[in-house]
Amino acid sequence: MATSLIRGKYVICEAGPNAANSRVITDGAVLQRDGIIEAVGTYDTLKQQPADEIIGGPRFLIMPGLVNSHHHGRGLSTFQLGTTDGCLETWIVDGWGRRPVDHYLMTLYTAIQMVKSGTTTVMYNHPHTPAHGLADEAEQVLQGFGAAGMRTAFSIYYRGQNRIVYHDDQAFLSRLPADLSDAVRRYVAATDLPEADYFALFRSLQERHGPEAPDAPTPGLVSLLLSPSNTQWVSDEFLSTTKEYAARYNAPIHMHLAESWYQKEYGIRAWGKTPAARLAELNFLGPELSCAHSVWLTEQDIQLLAAAGSTVCHNPSSNLRLKNGIAPVNAMLTGGVNVALGTDSTALNDDDDMLQEMRLAARLHRQPGLDRPALDTHQTLRLATANAARPTGFDGQIGALEPGRYADLVLLDWDAMTAPYFEEPGPSPIDAVIYRGKAAHVDTVIIQGETVLRNGQFLKADEAQITGELQRHLARPLDPQTAATRQMAARLLPYIQQFYQDWRPPADNPHYLYNGRT
Amino acid sequence: MATSLIRGKYVICEAGPNAANSRVITDGAVLQRDGIIEAVGTYDTLKQQPADEIIGGPRFLIMPGLVNSHHHGRGLSTFQLGTTDGCLETWIVDGWGRRPVDHYLMTLYTAIQMVKSGTTTVMYNHPHTPAHGLADEAEQVLQGFGAAGMRTAFSIYYRGQNRIVYHDDQAFLSRLPADLSDAVRRYVAATDLPEADYFALFRSLQERHGPEAPDAPTPGLVSLLLSPSNTQWVSDEFLSTTKEYAARYNAPIHMHLAESWYQKEYGIRAWGKTPAARLAELNFLGPELSCAHSVWLTEQDIQLLAAAGSTVCHNPSSNLRLKNGIAPVNAMLTGGVNVALGTDSTALNDDDDMLQEMRLAARLHRQPGLDRPALDTHQTLRLATANAARPTGFDGQIGALEPGRYADLVLLDWDAMTAPYFEEPGPSPIDAVIYRGKAAHVDTVIIQGETVLRNGQFLKADEAQITGELQRHLARPLDPQTAATRQMAARLLPYIQQFYQDWRPPADNPHYLYNGRT
Repeated sequence: MATSLIRGKYVICEAGPNAANSRVITDGAVLQRDGIIEAVGTYDTLKQQPADEIIGGPRFLIMPGLVNSHHHGRGLSTFQLGTTDGCLETWIVDGWGRRPVDHYLMTLYTAIQMVKSGTTTVMYNHPHTPAHGLADEAEQVLQGFGAAGMRTAFSIYYRGQNRIVYHDDQAFLSRLPADLSDAVRRYVAATDLPEADYFALFRSLQERHGPEAPDAPTPGLVSLLLSPSNTQWVSDEFLSTTKEYAARYNAPIHMHLAESWYQKEYGIRAWGKTPAARLAELNFLGPELSCAHSVWLTEQDIQLLAAAGSTVCHNPSSNLRLKNGIAPVNAMLTGGVNVALGTDSTALNDDDDMLQEMRLAARLHRQPGLDRPALDTHQTLRLATANAARPTGFDGQIGALEPGRYADLVLLDWDAMTAPYFEEPGPSPIDAVIYRGKAAHVDTVIIQGETVLRNGQFLKADEAQITGELQRHLARPLDPQTAATRQMAARLLPYIQQFYQDWRPPADNPHYLYNGRT
Repeated sequence: MATSLIRGKYVICEAGPNAANSRVITDGAVLQRDGIIEAVGTYDTLKQQPADEIIGGPRFLIMPGLVNSHHHGRGLSTFQLGTTDGCLETWIVDGWGRRPVDHYLMTLYTAIQMVKSGTTTVMYNHPHTPAHGLADEAEQVLQGFGAAGMRTAFSIYYRGQNRIVYHDDQAFLSRLPADLSDAVRRYVAATDLPEADYFALFRSLQERHGPEAPDAPTPGLVSLLLSPSNTQWVSDEFLSTTKEYAARYNAPIHMHLAESWYQKEYGIRAWGKTPAARLAELNFLGPELSCAHSVWLTEQDIQLLAAAGSTVCHNPSSNLRLKNGIAPVNAMLTGGVNVALGTDSTALNDDDDMLQEMRLAARLHRQPGLDRPALDTHQTLRLATANAARPTGFDGQIGALEPGRYADLVLLDWDAMTAPYFEEPGPSPIDAVIYRGKAAHVDTVIIQGETVLRNGQFLKADEAQITGELQRHLARPLDPQTAATRQMAARLLPYIQQFYQDWRPPADNPHYLYNGRT
């Protein structure tokens, strides 16, 4: 039995959808026992309680640990690995030739970076690249997050069709020169995975890491999700089996949706309706579903997602970097959609800093005009806490500081964050986090009662050693197969651009109006 | 005679409008003598030259010092001083009650922060608030920048009309309750300044700090600009006298333009044309003019500014924070407008970090779709260097590293910026700066040959002492007059909102399309 009392100048118990519904305690404290919060209140009322350890003090702000609701585990950015940003449809292929990474080291490295910027839970979506060894990769990733003590909502995405462009693989391959076609066919075939094998892998992960697993390596820290990668990449049968498994295992479903205009256009061409409308038609929408990106949702799509209780995981940096646009978050919130926030491993500063991602979101969704909506600071923090908790499989257990929930929390150095001066009374502590919070202000991070970061230093692993191992691993000469894939991808890119040549984005009628031609 | 040889793994001599026109030297060096660059080349060719000092080395990237092209000198953010972001038109009035600051301390503090994030030149636009003591304030600000060794393009903005809303002051005051009207009239009257006095002040600043001044306190470091604050805030006569003075003193002109949709709408209502078209009609546009913000330029406005050779100073963070929108930078660049970058003292992270501002700009202007424009990294860096140099009065003297220009340069820690790994050959050094450069990577800053920052430490003043003095100054009890102004501003705000109630932004036809309702 281990208890600790964590004290702060301010305790943000919960970020509400607006100022009136946020709960902040001045000179507050959180009492936790064995990873579960027992009490939250003023320091004066809680200081009498016996505790093994006192953490924090009056120079800290305490808030719920941040939840990164969409992430692909790239601690080293795609940029560092050599891929500059592009338009999603070409960028994906451009990345085929990135050098292989050690999944354990890379995951542990990214987990450390995330903890250092205040993230305690990650919705990790494993890329379904060459399929041999997918089970081993999953274990390595889970070991990496486990070594960091990080809470993980784990899924492996599945792509079974339209893997080169949004069109039948064989039909597209037949347009290529024979040698290029052969090379691309072989590359794509390496990701072939029968649908049944995907679900078998899900079952085995459940047995080893699921809530009923008797010997789970990190009890309480892992939830398992299903993940059809996106509407254009999976069959109707895959969606229907996914829905069955979700019900049988009480497992959430995570996917990408309408990330680019091209994906929306695919829906119109393939089914005569938007991807969200297609999911609704297949009875796939539901409260267990979370959809990353969702930039190109129509007003009707928003209504469908809201009615179903589904979540949208908003990735503002990635949406800009990969030329997908700005998701209509204000319209979603007004329409009643649960909106969460994530970095998609493609954050503004090429890290996975959720404090920065919150700030970008808060700024981006300030529509011009006195009466037009703007995301407020309370909503913004909620996107990365309570709202993001909902699709993780830990709904009601994380995302707020209250008795019975896991003790996942972050201490920011209030004095450093507001230095050299902050007008008080004045803006709220939640305002201060959204306007000024930086990774450099993250002093202490606690996950399920365990202190994983203190004085800004990661405690669970030797960061310098992990980084050194990762460096050595990456400094090896490029293997010939990856070098060949790079050449193949470079040759393929012009054909992909050509394929989309007659897919022309429209010229007006946006959710947001940021400027005007006339 | 002082010389130094500054060495870097990469020397970015000039950021071009595209990759083909950027000039980068690998293992390069810059030789400077008494503040002027004598030679730029490979280290091997320059290492034979005698130099008093060797600076840098193979772990650094060297680039031209950044130019912040629009700034109001608030080292402490408006947020830290108690004003949360709003819509520009109400936010201005909301800020009337901010506590007074010591201009010297505040300027020195902000200059240190800017240097620490790689800025060497600032276009400083002094707020024309209560006019008594404006000359003293100007001296204090110039002393502050001088103490920091920072290059300064200095102007004081002038507002002579429409100072509460975009409407005649007396007419608007007559709508208010009598006591509120009296209080607001007194507050506004304190900013009354005859136009002739503004120009007399400009002349006296020229005599003391201008290029011909025999005893200028900081020779070479100061240029003086004229500044009508914005079209709705000055008379035609003021604009015409400004243009005369600009010609007589060969002085640039800096102003705000079409920052908000409401300002554009004022033009339509007052003159039947946009503000830019109105300036064209008055023959005010020209190569000496730079316009901050310019969010709401039409296609025709862009053509007018391009034809005149005027500059737009783009302020992406501020435009979002104050609900003004996203300036059509891609359309401006395509149309031939010289676009610069600035923070407007309202940067994304509530600091004045131009590295972060460049990154935000680079991300924001990635229009969705394969064929739609996106600001590239070379253009982005150019916005903050060569393009930003043009309107400062130091055109051709800063913004690039080449013989004859001032030795204003920044050394970034390349290893830290790319850690733990960076694929080489891969993305360019300019890509690396735009994707990953942070203030924490700024190691050394040199302005006119003088090293003002080394190992990330500011050398010209004791930062801790300045910060401490600023803190003590601000911690004093609020003076009764400012407290009364706060109350007055709070009472006034609803009337301002009411005034704009029938000013309704339009619903479509944007330059950029980021999402779609249908």
